Amino acid sequence: MRVPNEIIKIANDIRGMRIRGAGRIARTAANALKLASELYEGTSVNEYVNYMRKVSDILLNTRPTAVSLPNAINFIMSRLLRNIDKIGDINEAKAIVRNAADEFIKRSKKALELIGEIGARRIRDGDIILTHCNSSAALSIIIRAHEMGKDIRVFATETRPRFQGLITVKVLAEKGIRVSLVPDSAIRLIMKKIDKVIVGADAIAANGAVVNKIGTSQIALIAHEARVRVFVAAETYKFSPATVIGELITIEERSPDEVIPKEKLSKYVRIKVRNPAFDVTPPEYVDAIITEQGIIPPQAAILILKEEYGWIIKDYLFKLSSEDEEEVTTK
Amino acid sequence: MRVPNEIIKIANDIRGMRIRGAGRIARTAANALKLASELYEGTSVNEYVNYMRKVSDILLNTRPTAVSLPNAINFIMSRLLRNIDKIGDINEAKAIVRNAADEFIKRSKKALELIGEIGARRIRDGDIILTHCNSSAALSIIIRAHEMGKDIRVFATETRPRFQGLITVKVLAEKGIRVSLVPDSAIRLIMKKIDKVIVGADAIAANGAVVNKIGTSQIALIAHEARVRVFVAAETYKFSPATVIGELITIEERSPDEVIPKEKLSKYVRIKVRNPAFDVTPPEYVDAIITEQGIIPPQAAILILKEEYGWIIKDYLFKLSSEDEEEVTTK
Amino acid sequence: MRVPNEIIKIANDIRGMRIRGAGRIARTAANALKLASELYEGTSVNEYVNYMRKVSDILLNTRPTAVSLPNAINFIMSRLLRNIDKIGDINEAKAIVRNAADEFIKRSKKALELIGEIGARRIRDGDIILTHCNSSAALSIIIRAHEMGKDIRVFATETRPRFQGLITVKVLAEKGIRVSLVPDSAIRLIMKKIDKVIVGADAIAANGAVVNKIGTSQIALIAHEARVRVFVAAETYKFSPATVIGELITIEERSPDEVIPKEKLSKYVRIKVRNPAFDVTPPEYVDAIITEQGIIPPQAAILILKEEYGWIIKDYLFKLSSEDEEEVTTK
Amino acid sequence: MRVPNEIIKIANDIRGMRIRGAGRIARTAANALKLASELYEGTSVNEYVNYMRKVSDILLNTRPTAVSLPNAINFIMSRLLRNIDKIGDINEAKAIVRNAADEFIKRSKKALELIGEIGARRIRDGDIILTHCNSSAALSIIIRAHEMGKDIRVFATETRPRFQGLITVKVLAEKGIRVSLVPDSAIRLIMKKIDKVIVGADAIAANGAVVNKIGTSQIALIAHEARVRVFVAAETYKFSPATVIGELITIEERSPDEVIPKEKLSKYVRIKVRNPAFDVTPPEYVDAIITEQGIIPPQAAILILKEEYGWIIKDYLFKLSSEDEEEVTTK
Amino acid sequence: MRVPNEIIKIANDIRGMRIRGAGRIARTAANALKLASELYEGTSVNEYVNYMRKVSDILLNTRPTAVSLPNAINFIMSRLLRNIDKIGDINEAKAIVRNAADEFIKRSKKALELIGEIGARRIRDGDIILTHCNSSAALSIIIRAHEMGKDIRVFATETRPRFQGLITVKVLAEKGIRVSLVPDSAIRLIMKKIDKVIVGADAIAANGAVVNKIGTSQIALIAHEARVRVFVAAETYKFSPATVIGELITIEERSPDEVIPKEKLSKYVRIKVRNPAFDVTPPEYVDAIITEQGIIPPQAAILILKEEYGWIIKDYLFKLSSEDEEEVTTK
Amino acid sequence: MRVPNEIIKIANDIRGMRIRGAGRIARTAANALKLASELYEGTSVNEYVNYMRKVSDILLNTRPTAVSLPNAINFIMSRLLRNIDKIGDINEAKAIVRNAADEFIKRSKKALELIGEIGARRIRDGDIILTHCNSSAALSIIIRAHEMGKDIRVFATETRPRFQGLITVKVLAEKGIRVSLVPDSAIRLIMKKIDKVIVGADAIAANGAVVNKIGTSQIALIAHEARVRVFVAAETYKFSPATVIGELITIEERSPDEVIPKEKLSKYVRIKVRNPAFDVTPPEYVDAIITEQGIIPPQAAILILKEEYGWIIKDYLFKLSSEDEEEVTTK
Repeated sequence: MRVPNEIIKIANDIRGMRIRGAGRIARTAANALKLASELYEGTSVNEYVNYMRKVSDILLNTRPTAVSLPNAINFIMSRLLRNIDKIGDINEAKAIVRNAADEFIKRSKKALELIGEIGARRIRDGDIILTHCNSSAALSIIIRAHEMGKDIRVFATETRPRFQGLITVKVLAEKGIRVSLVPDSAIRLIMKKIDKVIVGADAIAANGAVVNKIGTSQIALIAHEARVRVFVAAETYKFSPATVIGELITIEERSPDEVIPKEKLSKYVRIKVRNPAFDVTPPEYVDAIITEQGIIPPQAAILILKEEYGWIIKDYLFKLSSEDEEEVTTK
Repeated sequence: MRVPNEIIKIANDIRGMRIRGAGRIARTAANALKLASELYEGTSVNEYVNYMRKVSDILLNTRPTAVSLPNAINFIMSRLLRNIDKIGDINEAKAIVRNAADEFIKRSKKALELIGEIGARRIRDGDIILTHCNSSAALSIIIRAHEMGKDIRVFATETRPRFQGLITVKVLAEKGIRVSLVPDSAIRLIMKKIDKVIVGADAIAANGAVVNKIGTSQIALIAHEARVRVFVAAETYKFSPATVIGELITIEERSPDEVIPKEKLSKYVRIKVRNPAFDVTPPEYVDAIITEQGIIPPQAAILILKEEYGWIIKDYLFKLSSEDEEEVTTK
Repeated sequence: MRVPNEIIKIANDIRGMRIRGAGRIARTAANALKLASELYEGTSVNEYVNYMRKVSDILLNTRPTAVSLPNAINFIMSRLLRNIDKIGDINEAKAIVRNAADEFIKRSKKALELIGEIGARRIRDGDIILTHCNSSAALSIIIRAHEMGKDIRVFATETRPRFQGLITVKVLAEKGIRVSLVPDSAIRLIMKKIDKVIVGADAIAANGAVVNKIGTSQIALIAHEARVRVFVAAETYKFSPATVIGELITIEERSPDEVIPKEKLSKYVRIKVRNPAFDVTPPEYVDAIITEQGIIPPQAAILILKEEYGWIIKDYLFKLSSEDEEEVTTK
Repeated sequence: MRVPNEIIKIANDIRGMRIRGAGRIARTAANALKLASELYEGTSVNEYVNYMRKVSDILLNTRPTAVSLPNAINFIMSRLLRNIDKIGDINEAKAIVRNAADEFIKRSKKALELIGEIGARRIRDGDIILTHCNSSAALSIIIRAHEMGKDIRVFATETRPRFQGLITVKVLAEKGIRVSLVPDSAIRLIMKKIDKVIVGADAIAANGAVVNKIGTSQIALIAHEARVRVFVAAETYKFSPATVIGELITIEERSPDEVIPKEKLSKYVRIKVRNPAFDVTPPEYVDAIITEQGIIPPQAAILILKEEYGWIIKDYLFKLSSEDEEEVTTK
Repeated sequence: MRVPNEIIKIANDIRGMRIRGAGRIARTAANALKLASELYEGTSVNEYVNYMRKVSDILLNTRPTAVSLPNAINFIMSRLLRNIDKIGDINEAKAIVRNAADEFIKRSKKALELIGEIGARRIRDGDIILTHCNSSAALSIIIRAHEMGKDIRVFATETRPRFQGLITVKVLAEKGIRVSLVPDSAIRLIMKKIDKVIVGADAIAANGAVVNKIGTSQIALIAHEARVRVFVAAETYKFSPATVIGELITIEERSPDEVIPKEKLSKYVRIKVRNPAFDVTPPEYVDAIITEQGIIPPQAAILILKEEYGWIIKDYLFKLSSEDEEEVTTK
Repeated sequence: MRVPNEIIKIANDIRGMRIRGAGRIARTAANALKLASELYEGTSVNEYVNYMRKVSDILLNTRPTAVSLPNAINFIMSRLLRNIDKIGDINEAKAIVRNAADEFIKRSKKALELIGEIGARRIRDGDIILTHCNSSAALSIIIRAHEMGKDIRVFATETRPRFQGLITVKVLAEKGIRVSLVPDSAIRLIMKKIDKVIVGADAIAANGAVVNKIGTSQIALIAHEARVRVFVAAETYKFSPATVIGELITIEERSPDEVIPKEKLSKYVRIKVRNPAFDVTPPEYVDAIITEQGIIPPQAAILILKEEYGWIIKDYLFKLSSEDEEEVTTK
C-alpha cells in the first residue's frame, strides 16, 4: 500500500517548519504513525510492517538535527518489531502501534510537566532568568516557578533570524511575569544581572554536549565567564543514542532569506549569507540538564542514554561490528 | 549673539543619528565650530569667546558616549583659549578657530589612512577576518590589505538592531572582497574559522577598555576562547582623557522601536525592551589597538592619553583638587 | 504517645550544634530512633508507626543543610514502612527499627574506615596537604596515610568563625603529623606549596556540587588556579537524593554572635553581620570524591545516587508526577 | 612445576619493551597464559592453579603502568577461579584458560575495529588531525576515516625520546594519507590549524584521567586553549579498576640513555636526565573517550569500570574492608 | 651627634605597629626627619648630613614591606643631598628638610583626597562594594561616593588575624553607609552580589603586582572568577622604584600570637603557626589602580614609576652597573 | 667600491647559523660594519655612505626574524647619516662608524651584565628554575644568582631539533649548578615543581608579544596553568620598532634535515616535515621582561620602544604617511 497523502502532508509540514519544536515534532510523528496505521487497509501483518517502515522513513527524512523524531519512531516501531512473532492478526498489530503512539505522547506531555516541577524548585525567589529562543521545556520551568508564587524576572533574547524570542516574551507576559526583550548582541552587557540561564535543547549528545538554537553556546560561554549557572531543560527523548556510536549531529543550514528578506536579497550580490539553525554547547558550560528523570550533570547524559536506549545502542554496536566483519571478508 | 539655526540643526542631526560614526561626528563638530565662527557678526573678542563656548556646549550635549566630540571641540577651543591674551582682534580669533578646525579634520582623515596602512601590514595572505558593525577605521584596514593584494575573506555580523552589517558587506563586496553575513547569534559557531577579529571603537578608556557597538565585548570573549586575536582600530581622538580622572563613559540606551518597529510595539504590552547602543570590552580580550601613532597593547592607552591629552588631564586634576579645597573650606 | 523528653533533648543538641558533623548527626539520629522505639510503651503497630513518624519529623527539623540526617532516618523508617504488611506484632516492629539503626551505625563507621583506606592510597610520600574545618572523613584519610608510614605535612585553616581548624591541628599533631595553622586569608599565599587539598562534605548534590563548611569553595578555586588537585571525602549517606528532583540545599545562616561576641555586638550598631555556615563548590573544581564505594569524579554523583537511593528518587518523581495531576484536576 | 623458560622470555620481552603498546602487551600476556597452560605437565588441578598464579605474577611485574596487563590476566584467571569448584579434571581447567585467552584476544581485536568505526564517524571531511606517539587505537580511527573516503590531513609529533612519531607518519603515508611531522616543541604553533586531536591511552583512571605517552597532557592543554577538541581512543581493558579504590598509577621512569645516547652520557657528568614515559591528562581537557562500547565523556569512565569490572571492584572493597578489621583487632 | 630618643621611640612605634598604614607610616617618617633636623644642635653641614643619614637608616629598618617609608625619606633626603653644594649654612640645610617634610605631608594628604574624588566617580548609584582590611585610600573613595549622594552598600571582611575589618565597618556605619561584615571565608559566597571590589595597597611593583594585606589576592581571584571588577587605591608614593631593578618586596611574617593568643599557644605544641602580613595580587586580577595622578591599568605602574622616580631608578641602574665593574676588576 | 669578501663571509656565517643568538648576531653585525668601514679605500664621503648602505643591506638579509640585527645596524648607520652634513672628510666619517660600533658592542655586553644583576635579585634561595634553549640573557641571570650564593636548581629542556639544551646543561653544570635535562614533551609533568621559568627572546613586539625559540609559548602556557611565573630576559635592542607600525615578525622555517637527518629523509617520502625556528608567546603568559633598563610588564614594551626607538618610529610613520599621499595623488 502507498503512503497516504495525509502522512506526506505532515512530513512536509515538519520539513517546512510549520510544525516546530523538538517536542511537537516528536508527538506529531507519533500521531502520524498512529494515523498511518489506522489508514492501512490490508490484512497482511508482514505487508503492514513494511508499510509502516516506509512511513517511518518518510518522517525520519524531514529534519536532520531533530533527535526527538527518530526516538519517537523507534519508541513505537520497536514495540511492533519486538513483538512481531507473537502478533496474531493485523488488528493486534495496529493495537500495538496505537497504544505505543498514545503512550509516547502521554509520556512526552508528562515529561514536560515533570521538568517544570523539578526545574521550578531550582529557582529562588527574586531570581532573574535569561532564556533564549522559545523552548517549551524551559518555559515550563519558568511558568511553574511563577505559579509557585516565586517573584521572578525574565530576560529573553530576540533570537535572530526568526525572532522566536518575541513569542517567548508574549507568552510570559500573558502569564503575568515581568519580562524584558534584548537583542542577541546585548547578552554580555546584561549578564551581570542574571542569576540563572535556562534554555531548551534539540539534542543531547553522548558526551553531554547540547545541540540547541543558534546562539545558545555563546550565551553559555558568557554565563560561564560571569559565574552564572546554565540549566538545560530536556526530555530524555532528546538524548541521542546514535552519538554513542560516533554519529555526528548535523547542524541544519537554513535558507538565506530568513536572514535577508527575499525581496532585498538581490541587492546583496556576491555576498554569502550564513544561516545555521543550531550550535553545540560543550558540557563544561552547562551546570545541569533537567530531565523528567531528574537533574543530571551533562557528563551523565551517557547514563540516561544507557538506561533509556541501552537496547538501541547495543543494536548499533552489533551492526557496526557485523558490518566490520563483512568488510573484512569482502576485502 | 544667539547660536545660529544652522548650528542647532547640525546638533540635532548628530543627536538623531543622521550623522553617525565617531569620526564623522568629530569632523562635523569641527566644521560646526568653524561655521559658527564665520557666522559670528560681532567685534568683541570676549563676547565671541562666550558665544563659541555656548556653541560648544550645544554640540557636547548631543551624544553622551561619543568621546570624539569633546576631543574635537577641545582641540579647537583650547587653541583659542590658550592664545586669548595674544589675540589682537576678532579676525585673528576667527583665524585661530578656522585653522584649528581645518587642522583637526585633516589630521582625522590622515589618521584613518595611517591606521589602514599600519593595520593592513598585520593581515596575512589567506586570513579570514571577522568584523562587527560598520567602522571606518576597521574597514580602512581591511580594504587596504585587499589593495595590497592580500587574499582575504571577511565575515561581518548583522549587528542588530540597526543592521549596520548590511552596509559593511555591501561596501566590501563592491571592493571585490569575498564577504559573508552572519547573524549575531552565530558568532561562536563560525569563530573556529576566523584568523583575526578587527573592530572599531567609540571610546578608549584609561585602563584600555574599549567602548564600541553593542555586541563587541561578546565577540571579543568568543575570540579569546578560541585563541583568535582581536584588534581594535581607533584614532587617538577616541581616547578619553576624562576617564583618567574616573569619569564613567555613559552607555547610551536608545529607543525600543529600533528593536521592535513602532507599529508592532502595541502588541508587546508589559514587555520592557532593552536597547543599549554600546558595550565595554575589557582590555584582557583585546590584543592590540591600532592607532595612527602605531600599534599599542590596550594597557598602554594611558601612554597615548598622557602624550595627546596630558595638559587636559593636568587641568582636570587641578580642578578636582581645587574643588576639593573649596569643599573643605565651606564645611 | 507523646515524644519522650530524651528525644526532644537530642533534637535540641543537634540544633544547638552540641552534636556536630554530618556523620555524628546521622548516627545520633539513628540512635535516637532506636531509643524512641524502645521507649514506646503501647502495643498497636499502627500507633507505633505514627509515633515513629512524629519522632522522625522532630529530628528532621533540627538542621536544614544536613543531608545525612534524612538519609539516616530514611534508611531506618523505610525498612519499617516497606515491611508494614508483614509485621506481626509490636516487638517485630521494634526489632526492625533496632536492627536498621544498628546496621546504619555500623555501615557509617565502616564507611569512614574505607574512605581512610582508599584515600590514603592517593597520598604520596612527601605530600603537603591542605585541609579545612574538621572533617572526620578527611582526617581519616590523612591519619591513615600517616599510619601507612607516608611522610606527610598538613596545613589546616583556622576556619572562622568557630575555629574548628584548632581542633584539627591538635588531633593531627597528637598523631605525630607535622602540621601548620594558617588564617583563612592566607590560603592563596601558601597554595603553591600544597600538593593536595582534602576536605569533607556536608552534602553532595545531583550534579556533583559539594556543600561544605564556608570557605571550601574559595579554597577549591584557589587550588584550581594553581593546578592543585582537590579531593572531597564523603560517605554515600551525604549524597542528597532530593537534589535529583530539584530541591535546593538550604545554606544555614547562623547567629552573628559567632562572628562578633555577644558582649561586643552592642558596639556595632547598624552593622549587619553575615554568618553563612556552608558554601557550594562547583564540580569543576573537585577532582574526585572519595566514598566508601570507591573514588568517583563529582559528575558521577548521580550514579551513586541512583545506586543507593534509586527507590527514593523514583518515589519523589512519582509524587511530583501525582501532585501535578491533582493540580490539573483541581484547576 | 617451575615456570617454563618460554614464559620467562616473554616476560623479559615485555619488560625490555621489545613488545610494546598496551594492546599488544595484553594480548601477549593472554597468549603467555595459554602457552603456560599448555606446557603444564601435571594432573592436579590445585597444583595447576598455583602454577598459573605464579605465571600471572611474573607477567604482572613486567611493566608498572600497563593497566591492560592485569586486566588481561584477570579476564582469564577469574574465569578459572570462579569455576574452580565445578572443574572435573586438568583438561577442563586447561580448556577454560585456553578459551578465555582466545576470547580475550578476539575481543581485543574486535574492540580495535569498533573504535575505528565509531571514531571515524566523528571525523569530518576536510579535518586536520593531530596525533601523538604511535597508538593503534588512534590510528585505527584515522585510517578508517580515510578508508571511508574522508579527505583528511594528519600532523604527527616526533614523540621524543623514542621517536615513535616516525613510525606513525610512515604507516599513515603508506595508506595514502597526507601527513606532516612536527617536533614536540612546535605543537602550539600549529594548533590553530588543527580540527581534532586524537590520541591513545595506556590507562584510564576512575575519575576519567588519561595516562598516556609523555607529552599527551601538554598537547591536551594546548588544544583546550585553542578550543580544539581532544579525543582519546581506548579499549575498555585499559580502564583501571584499581584506581577506584585509590591505587595510584605509577609513572614509569625509563633509562637516561633513551634521552642522551650511552656513548655521550659520559660528557654530561653531574647532569640528571629525567625520562618519564607517561603523563596524566586531567579529564577537563578530554572531550570524549572512544571505546568499543561507544563514546563517553571522561567523567563516565567510572560507569564503564562498574559495568566491566564491577566484581573486581567489589572484591577490592571487600579486601580493604577486611584488612581494616584485622588491623582493628590486632591493635 | 647621637640620634635623639624621640626618634628612636617613633621608630619603635612603627616597628610595633602602634603606627600603622602605609600613609601614616610615611607621614610619621617625614615628621620624624623634620623633628630630628630641629633637634640637631651642631653647626657643621657635613656632620648634619651624616646625622640625618643615620636617622634615615633607623627609620628605614622598622618595617620591611613598607615602600612608602623609603619613598618618604628619599623625597626629603634627596632634596637635601642634591642641593648640598649650594647650601650656605646649617639653617639653610634645616630649612630644606623642614620644607621637604611639610611638602611631602601636604602632598600625601592631597593625594588621599584626589584618590577619593577620582575613585568616587567610578562608583555608580546602587553599587555594592566589597572592601578588605582598613585602607584610608579605599575608604576615601567609598566615603566620597556616599557624600556625592550615591546610594551604596558595603561588605567588609573581618580581616583575620587583627580584625581591621571591624574598624572599617564602624567608620563606614558612622558615616551613615549601610555596611555588612563577613568572615574571610565567606567571600566567594557573597561575591555574586558585589559590583566592585575596592582595596588599598602597601606597595605596587614594577610589573603592576599589588602587595596588600593578606587575603587581597584571593579576593581578587574570586572577583575575577565572577567578572567583578577590582580597583586598587594607591598614592604614587606606594609605587616601588626598587622593584624596577629586581628587588623583591619582602613579605613580613608576623608573630604567631596574633593568630593564637599567647595564653593559649602552650596548648598548641608542635604546631607551626603561619602569619604572613601581606600577599601579592598579580596584575591580571586588577582592573585599575586609582592614584592621585589618575586611573591607570596595573601594567602602567612602570609609567608612574618612571615619571615619579625616574632619577632614583637611573641611580639604582648606575650603581648596579658600577658594582658590576668593580666586581670584574676585583676578580 | 665592492663589498669585501670578508663581509660576505660574515653574512654567510650568520645565515648558516654558524654565528647564532640574537646578541652575538648583533655584535657581529656591528663589528662587520666597523670592518667594512676600515676596508674602505676611497675618499669620497658620499660614495662611502652608499658603500656602507650596501654592506648594511647584505647583513640585513641574512636572518628574517632577528630584530637585533637591524637595531644594531640602525644604531651605527643613524649616527653616520644624522651627522652627514657636519662631516668634514672620510676619516671623520670612519671615526663615527668605528665609535658607534664600539659603543654598540660595549652597551650590548653591559646590558647582559645588568640583566644578570637585575634578574638574579628576583630569584629566591631554594628556587627551582626552568629554562629553554640556550639564551645568554637567561643564563646570565641564573649564573649571577648562583654567584650570589643562592641555592638554586635548574631544569633545562632538550630543545629539539638542535638540542641547544645540551649546551645549557653543560654550561650550568660547569658552574656547579645542579641541573636536570628533560625532553620537550615532559614539561607539563615537571611544571608543578618549578618556581620560575626564565627564557630569552629573539624579538619583543609592540604589544609585548615575545618571539623566541620554538617551544617557548607552550612552556609559558603550561607555566600559566600552574601559576608559575614566567620571566623573559631581553636586551632593549631586541625590541622591534617596526612592529609599532604593523610589521609582522617573520617566523623562520628551517630545513627538514634538522628534524630528520639527511641520510634518513629518503625513507620518509610523501611526508612533510615542519621545522619552524621560533614561536610567539602572547603577553598574557609573560609576567615580566627583564631588560638592562629594569623590569617591565610585557605591556610596557611600547614604553621602551618609544624611549629607545622613538625617532625610528616617527620616521616610519612619516614614511607611511607620505607613501599614502603619493598613492592618493597618483590615483
